[in-house]
Amino acid sequence: MKRLRALLVAICAGTMLFTMVDAKAARPSLILTAEGVEAIRQSRQTRQTYSLFEASLEDAKTRVERSIAEGVLVPTPVDPGGGYTHERHKENYKVIHDAGILFQLLGDKRYLRHATDLLLAYAEIYEDLPLHPAQKRQSPGKLFWQNLNESVWLVHVVQGFDAIADALSDKDRATIEDHLLRPVADFLSLQNPETFQKIHNHGTWAAAGVGMTGYALHDPSLVERALLGLTGDGTSGFLAQLDQLFSPDGYYTEGPYYQRYALMPFVLFAQAIDHNEPDRKIFEHRDGVLLKAIDATIQQSYAGKFFPINDAIKEKGLDTQELVYAVAAAFTRTGRNDLLSIADYQGKTVLTGDGLAVARAVSEGAGQSFAFRTMMLRDGPDGDQGSLAILRMGDGPMAQTIVAKNTSQGMGHGHFDKLSYILYDNGREILTDYGAARFLNVPSKDGGRYLLENQSWAKQTIAHNTLVVNESSQFGGDWKRAQKYWPTVRYFEAGERLNVVSASLENAYPDTVIERTVVQLDHPAFAAPLLIDVMSASSQEKTTFDLPFYFDGQIVGFSGALQANTESRKPLGQAHGYQHLWVEATGQPTDGPIRFSWLNARRFYTLHAVAPEKTKPVFVRTGANDPDFNLRDQQGLILRSNGRKAVRFLSVIEPHGIYNPAAEFTAGSDSQIARIDHVFEAGADLIKIEMKTGEIIRLAISNDPDSEKTHRILSAGHEWAWRGFVTVLEEE
Amino acid sequence: MKRLRALLVAICAGTMLFTMVDAKAARPSLILTAEGVEAIRQSRQTRQTYSLFEASLEDAKTRVERSIAEGVLVPTPVDPGGGYTHERHKENYKVIHDAGILFQLLGDKRYLRHATDLLLAYAEIYEDLPLHPAQKRQSPGKLFWQNLNESVWLVHVVQGFDAIADALSDKDRATIEDHLLRPVADFLSLQNPETFQKIHNHGTWAAAGVGMTGYALHDPSLVERALLGLTGDGTSGFLAQLDQLFSPDGYYTEGPYYQRYALMPFVLFAQAIDHNEPDRKIFEHRDGVLLKAIDATIQQSYAGKFFPINDAIKEKGLDTQELVYAVAAAFTRTGRNDLLSIADYQGKTVLTGDGLAVARAVSEGAGQSFAFRTMMLRDGPDGDQGSLAILRMGDGPMAQTIVAKNTSQGMGHGHFDKLSYILYDNGREILTDYGAARFLNVPSKDGGRYLLENQSWAKQTIAHNTLVVNESSQFGGDWKRAQKYWPTVRYFEAGERLNVVSASLENAYPDTVIERTVVQLDHPAFAAPLLIDVMSASSQEKTTFDLPFYFDGQIVGFSGALQANTESRKPLGQAHGYQHLWVEATGQPTDGPIRFSWLNARRFYTLHAVAPEKTKPVFVRTGANDPDFNLRDQQGLILRSNGRKAVRFLSVIEPHGIYNPAAEFTAGSDSQIARIDHVFEAGADLIKIEMKTGEIIRLAISNDPDSEKTHRILSAGHEWAWRGFVTVLEEE
Repeated sequence: MKRLRALLVAICAGTMLFTMVDAKAARPSLILTAEGVEAIRQSRQTRQTYSLFEASLEDAKTRVERSIAEGVLVPTPVDPGGGYTHERHKENYKVIHDAGILFQLLGDKRYLRHATDLLLAYAEIYEDLPLHPAQKRQSPGKLFWQNLNESVWLVHVVQGFDAIADALSDKDRATIEDHLLRPVADFLSLQNPETFQKIHNHGTWAAAGVGMTGYALHDPSLVERALLGLTGDGTSGFLAQLDQLFSPDGYYTEGPYYQRYALMPFVLFAQAIDHNEPDRKIFEHRDGVLLKAIDATIQQSYAGKFFPINDAIKEKGLDTQELVYAVAAAFTRTGRNDLLSIADYQGKTVLTGDGLAVARAVSEGAGQSFAFRTMMLRDGPDGDQGSLAILRMGDGPMAQTIVAKNTSQGMGHGHFDKLSYILYDNGREILTDYGAARFLNVPSKDGGRYLLENQSWAKQTIAHNTLVVNESSQFGGDWKRAQKYWPTVRYFEAGERLNVVSASLENAYPDTVIERTVVQLDHPAFAAPLLIDVMSASSQEKTTFDLPFYFDGQIVGFSGALQANTESRKPLGQAHGYQHLWVEATGQPTDGPIRFSWLNARRFYTLHAVAPEKTKPVFVRTGANDPDFNLRDQQGLILRSNGRKAVRFLSVIEPHGIYNPAAEFTAGSDSQIARIDHVFEAGADLIKIEMKTGEIIRLAISNDPDSEKTHRILSAGHEWAWRGFVTVLEEE
Repeated sequence: MKRLRALLVAICAGTMLFTMVDAKAARPSLILTAEGVEAIRQSRQTRQTYSLFEASLEDAKTRVERSIAEGVLVPTPVDPGGGYTHERHKENYKVIHDAGILFQLLGDKRYLRHATDLLLAYAEIYEDLPLHPAQKRQSPGKLFWQNLNESVWLVHVVQGFDAIADALSDKDRATIEDHLLRPVADFLSLQNPETFQKIHNHGTWAAAGVGMTGYALHDPSLVERALLGLTGDGTSGFLAQLDQLFSPDGYYTEGPYYQRYALMPFVLFAQAIDHNEPDRKIFEHRDGVLLKAIDATIQQSYAGKFFPINDAIKEKGLDTQELVYAVAAAFTRTGRNDLLSIADYQGKTVLTGDGLAVARAVSEGAGQSFAFRTMMLRDGPDGDQGSLAILRMGDGPMAQTIVAKNTSQGMGHGHFDKLSYILYDNGREILTDYGAARFLNVPSKDGGRYLLENQSWAKQTIAHNTLVVNESSQFGGDWKRAQKYWPTVRYFEAGERLNVVSASLENAYPDTVIERTVVQLDHPAFAAPLLIDVMSASSQEKTTFDLPFYFDGQIVGFSGALQANTESRKPLGQAHGYQHLWVEATGQPTDGPIRFSWLNARRFYTLHAVAPEKTKPVFVRTGANDPDFNLRDQQGLILRSNGRKAVRFLSVIEPHGIYNPAAEFTAGSDSQIARIDHVFEAGADLIKIEMKTGEIIRLAISNDPDSEKTHRILSAGHEWAWRGFVTVLEEE
């Protein structure tokens, strides 16, 4: 299969070379095109201006005018991320980009002059620069501490160049091409083959920079290098990355935080390809995987922020610049009006023909709410390496959303958190994912890098809402081993009132199989949907199973007696993240149901757990063994079962009530559920939820994807029969 | 003086009785007046509608229509706050109020019928009701667990009655008057003399209910009882409360959280007085103290939330219903257009003529930003019991604001936190006040009452940003003793670039004098104003002085070595709140300056402290001895000086930089200050701030309010001379 693909790619490459020689598209021809410039000029000449576009134009003007006032500042690279020279070179690439585009759109020669001066200043020094003095362990740059930044720099700068190239003197153009752009492109490819050939977002950025430089310099060899890799056989390069980094559903294996970042070079370079070689139909490649990836990126968000799975900065969301480009590219290619609501949320657009179209449509009121939906994003190049399931119930931004992470490892930034989930409700994150331990670009926090605690805590299994076996992380915390395995998705169904996903995981622990079924149920007896979660595991040995729930909010109720560690605290364990958890309180081992309530902002939540016999509840809080105060505060409840070979945890999470201290109004702070019973028999789960009103809700889970088979379960003398994986049983 | 006031009041009372007999104002005549009804009807008939008013009208309709659909539900009182019957009776008073007003405005008899039915249902049961079964220790009600709620109930219900009274049959009217309103009024006054005669907001609510009932029932004896108290001599009652509860600057001694609550009965009853007896000129009483109190309430807020000093729920802010009434009353009486921005923020107004005027002005775009300003609100009936100083620098809602609490104790809800301050900056609370330990109306949290931790933690001195002497609270934590003393305000000055307040405190600790000077300095060398704080204390004995800074955010830097308690934690102390603090880390005792940086949302903050020799920094976190998880998480840095008789702490708080993880941009995360020196000589402080750029800023504090005197200080061979309490010294 892989060889076939390589072959096809090689054939395409031949075509490409042929086309290239022929077609020197009129500059600019990367993201901004000559047609786009014409449309924008015309629109502005006829005074048809649109606020989103004008706001972005003003931003660019402000940036460039400030830079003109400051003068040409191209300092010798010294500082790591967050430091002066780092930020200056970042700012400069934006200035060169914006100045070039403003020159095209407004015709003001001051912008041409400033872009030229900056480019010449870089051309003056670039070739003689040594590797950056604060170089990162891997892949150093020259202008920046890592060459990833240098690729991003090139992707922007070459666009600025492309916009002014035809207005430059031959001498200046040659200087910039020969002493800056080509050397940077060579540095990022020939001199850094390891990064360049990686199937990884760093490689995509490099390919985009090199390939766009190829188009701008009318140099097909650079384009070929970018598309097919250094060896030219398509085993690396942009097309291989497009084939391998996204799943057929447009899921990016590292998760949404890196997806939105990785997306940008894909979207930019693809547009440049589309503008220079439309016959490639790059946006139709692999059944339109790039457009699917843009949609998937937006789908992987709640209340404007991306799901913080894997290494992720939690503040990152839909207003990120990367997605501004993606929305504009997708809107003109799909006509999807619901993308306009995202553009509106972003409050800006790109200064291209696509951006103008977005701004116009928003101004004309064509926007619709983004179509967030329940979906399963398969992981892996062929879609067979697990999945991310997104269960949604309700409309709009407050809709309850469950994110079940049954994906593959996602490489080095992946967390050992298979079968975990996040619960969002009422506009907030209720059962949380810690995200990454990192303070982006803060020099005092290890230069803004991932902190040691990212490894020792954030990646570990115990830091997530999933089962931990014998106090150790999945795959022993070895990501390279983890990379070889993924959960098996047993079942997925999206319905009007019931969503379900079920997956199993082997290999994560020796001789242990773990299964989890997550149901989202909208039932008239409840004001908000229930989350119903059956987590089971079996092992060969007597085992300690820990099932954590990291909640956000204030504890307002617990069903049993708690032994609180009021006078002294100790960590829960020694390794695999356990060393970072203070034990706040311990409950008595219990055979009965556990009930725990917390208050998050304006709503109450109750976890009803039917756990294995003698399960011990443990309240924990992050912060132990954190001498540098690198961890954020996070509370959790761990259900600990000790000394059993097999366990089955039923957890029902019930949102209820309203807490409004501003209006001094509180209602429904008590759970509506009186009692929950759980029967597991002949492979099927029967869950009985008894309301305080006396009403009874029964849910049956057959654990059998065969939709035709009839299942039967006997409970309290009554035989229940049903078809399907999961169903709400109705009394006859 | 007091006797003179009582005499004057008695004379006024005579006049009042005379006026009363004469003037039966046409109903409605409480808050909604016949003139108001006319204006509103006319405005609506001519289709001049205003969104703020219409939105409020719709809210009322929704409420009443829902209640009509539910039917007349007047359950036997059983539940405490947050429980069903409690919330039902609360809802009912709003329904009766709204239904009466809607009947007046819209003329729909369904509203008349529903209000009448509810009133008759209450009249049916009220007299036979026993005291509430879940009664609070003090002052139980009959419909509610405390009679405060019953007063609030009456204040609303009597307005509904007033609006429908003329449309009722004589029989129904008599039933409601004789078996409901008069019995409730008597219950709240004659049968609860202790509450009724208290100079306290519970008393004001009772007086307002009784007095408004008097006007509605045309019964001058009730009005007299409300105005002059049970004995009729003016030593208690509404006028005494108006004279004693507000300071001449309109500050309410319990602080803004209770001020906005206390304000409502004042504002409502005053309007009723004004409408029935305009000659009283009640809004001009005491130089317009009520209007000053309304302004002061708004001034005591930041980013829409009230300063959380004393027992305060931090979520409470300007959109509270109480202030909706106050803004409407103040707008028509002052014409201040800046009040309209508050009405706009509230998004609603009252259904009266005043409300119509507000809504119209907002619609017409007359609104201006509220004039937040630097000010000192004197405390005490005569303004001589300390003050709350509000220092502001910058414009708009992000303006830096320092709240220096040099007030009197503020009775039983007061905290032992004299000379403490709160720092707000960039739209957020940076150095924080814990507020109250309470979850309003959450039954599982002790019925929503103040929790035990409110006493054991929230009120204690160590819970605040002020000096603690020998690990004990001010006045030994005895509020009745504390009530007798207050800080002396030594100096206050508000300027363009420099604000300052200085106060001293004796009596809080035996033989100990504490002084604090807080300066807010806007200097061109800094992007944001500096807070400069000199805290000194002297005692007769060797003493432990603890100076805490409770910060919100993530620790990003500390100047010295820290011994972090990574493997086990212990509380800092045993009592006075110390038992609730975990010791997270301890620094080495140091003679040099201490520098501590933290990150709050998008800005960095550095505390530069020049502390007494051998001061030990201690990082603490709330949560120890909190078995019921009643405390919120709060971190602090305590500077501990041990074994000295006198101390002088200089603290400079410097906001700097920007952290924007969404845009991946960080700058200025390092302090701009290289070094700070502090010389104290001949009673004056010389503070030298050396910037990393080499620039030097010198601040001199003479500690002498005499503005004429010339002060001199010798530092490093140079003599500096200046006039005034505080000044920035300029090199000659």
